[in-house]
Amino acid sequence: MISRSTFVIPRPRFEGDFVLNEVLPLESGEVLVNPTLHYATYGKLNAARDNAVLVCHALSGSAEVASWWPQLFVPGGLLDLERDFVIGINVFGSCYGSTGPLSIDPATGKPYGATFPLINIRDIVRAEVKLIESLGIQQLKLAIGASIGGMQVLEWAIQFPQKVARAISIGVAPLGAMGLGLNHLQRQAIMLDPTWKGGHYETGKGPTGGLALARALGTISYKSVPLFEHRFNRKPNRGGKENPWISTSAGQNGRFDIAGYLDHQGAVFTPRFDANSYICLTRTMDTFDPVRAHESPYVAYSRIEAHLTLVGISTDWLFPPEDVRSLAAIIRAAGTRCDYREMASLQGHDAFLAEPEQLVRLLTPVFE
Amino acid sequence: MISRSTFVIPRPRFEGDFVLNEVLPLESGEVLVNPTLHYATYGKLNAARDNAVLVCHALSGSAEVASWWPQLFVPGGLLDLERDFVIGINVFGSCYGSTGPLSIDPATGKPYGATFPLINIRDIVRAEVKLIESLGIQQLKLAIGASIGGMQVLEWAIQFPQKVARAISIGVAPLGAMGLGLNHLQRQAIMLDPTWKGGHYETGKGPTGGLALARALGTISYKSVPLFEHRFNRKPNRGGKENPWISTSAGQNGRFDIAGYLDHQGAVFTPRFDANSYICLTRTMDTFDPVRAHESPYVAYSRIEAHLTLVGISTDWLFPPEDVRSLAAIIRAAGTRCDYREMASLQGHDAFLAEPEQLVRLLTPVFE
Repeated sequence: MISRSTFVIPRPRFEGDFVLNEVLPLESGEVLVNPTLHYATYGKLNAARDNAVLVCHALSGSAEVASWWPQLFVPGGLLDLERDFVIGINVFGSCYGSTGPLSIDPATGKPYGATFPLINIRDIVRAEVKLIESLGIQQLKLAIGASIGGMQVLEWAIQFPQKVARAISIGVAPLGAMGLGLNHLQRQAIMLDPTWKGGHYETGKGPTGGLALARALGTISYKSVPLFEHRFNRKPNRGGKENPWISTSAGQNGRFDIAGYLDHQGAVFTPRFDANSYICLTRTMDTFDPVRAHESPYVAYSRIEAHLTLVGISTDWLFPPEDVRSLAAIIRAAGTRCDYREMASLQGHDAFLAEPEQLVRLLTPVFE
Repeated sequence: MISRSTFVIPRPRFEGDFVLNEVLPLESGEVLVNPTLHYATYGKLNAARDNAVLVCHALSGSAEVASWWPQLFVPGGLLDLERDFVIGINVFGSCYGSTGPLSIDPATGKPYGATFPLINIRDIVRAEVKLIESLGIQQLKLAIGASIGGMQVLEWAIQFPQKVARAISIGVAPLGAMGLGLNHLQRQAIMLDPTWKGGHYETGKGPTGGLALARALGTISYKSVPLFEHRFNRKPNRGGKENPWISTSAGQNGRFDIAGYLDHQGAVFTPRFDANSYICLTRTMDTFDPVRAHESPYVAYSRIEAHLTLVGISTDWLFPPEDVRSLAAIIRAAGTRCDYREMASLQGHDAFLAEPEQLVRLLTPVFE
């Protein structure tokens, strides 16, 4: 038993690329030629190859699961590297190693940029399955993820029912109109930046102002009214700079504390993310619809063989808990075993990253 | 009695300018030199001069009350032009006739643009009182307004208690952190537009892209999740254009219906509004705090002599009904008569414009 204080964030035992040597058809009708999935693994695959856990990342995540979700690695708990073989796969469209807008388009010899095709969650999952099969794994012990990660989990369970024993999807339902609107405006913010140049900016010289504004607006959608009230209320900007109560020769730049926080979230994001990837992955989020092209919700959800757990977050307004609960009920109505659990948190959608200890506590009974 | 079907939107009997021949000190410490208030009146002031109603406008409104709130003019009802003398006053900072960023700064001979000072609600009200006094009116029969208009109503009642007999403030409380954040990001969107030029754009050649994005984001804050779900859900963009499920050579421009709606709200707004005015008036909204510089809420609110009615809107998340209800309780705790009424509406903050008939029904008992 390793005590909390001595816990060290695990490093991947392996990190590398999986190349699909094929023309991969996409849901949009376009194709990716010989695309790459970047992935990382932790722990060891056992001889029976039945201890594999796939952890799917959200919009700004990466294959390095332990870097953004370290608290899930609990000896004897949810992810135990003495017991489990944990796999993280970077999704298409991202800027963390897999084929995305920064990659070279084989048709032109130049980066895809804004011409990168629309990636649907199903496209990602179809490729992920091939990677997992290449490791000799016939069935995942568990697939777990939140947000876009949780969308992958659901599509795994629906499209490849025999390949997932347990599935946990957190903060996920088809995105509602408010979420679709907020994502749209984030893309518009990027496109408003003159350095976006229709998406054809030089790599590294992208639209940082637009991306920062998009991230700030995204932050609003990931957090919640009660959190902001609790933390920021009507406090002036910290440090006394840019007093919100006055105007200056610099114009109307006074800021309340919440404004300073949002600006900061934008500023720290732009050095680590690509604007075209942001546009691409918000579109991936928008177009998630597990029922699409199935005859009915019943037909889609009755395919699931995994024991499925959906987790809602009490203050999530991007994927409201009532939508997640309703999705669980619809899935159960199709005869599929589906638990619903709810995180009670001020953190909004972001609770899966902001309060992982609660998530671990909530999910531990699933495995007992 | 005029039947509904023959109701004609009233035109102002008078519309013109009131010039304050003075150096008007502002709450920010700056001044306005000889500023102008543009105003409109409807009906006739009676001999006793006790039938005056001030209707205060919101962010994008104007002095022409009947143009944006026609349904309040109900013969025998809330505003009756056989009985009432109705006054609308354009606020400082707006672009509809009163002194604002488009006006000439006497210090430079050029338009203020981004150098226009921060205008507080109290600044507006202090000037409005002078205009009302110039008409020979000692006390308003009623002051009514919503949003920034309702903020003016509250400051009238607090700062000039003997000058208001009845006061109705709709959808108003000091703005919370979420609202402050959303307003901040709207200003950032304008400032991101390269044609904003630090606020020094040529009149008429302003940052339409940034202003449209700001308005679209504002629309999100004025409406509500349940309204968007009810109206747009996950419908694709109407007319079948810009299918959200595909990517095109034009890039990631697929749109759901909500996105088309938001873009439309932005597009129809830019020809009728100035970007610097938008920046200025959202700052005015942010800095509304009726207790500021008073010793305590008790001291501020016990000043009120008017019979006050606050109206909350069930789905308003910019000024949540619980905040308005709480404000009413705080005002009552100061010994001031203050009713609270609530509109049950899907429309969010915008309900005061979108469902004026309900508002009239809700308020009519106040006058019976």
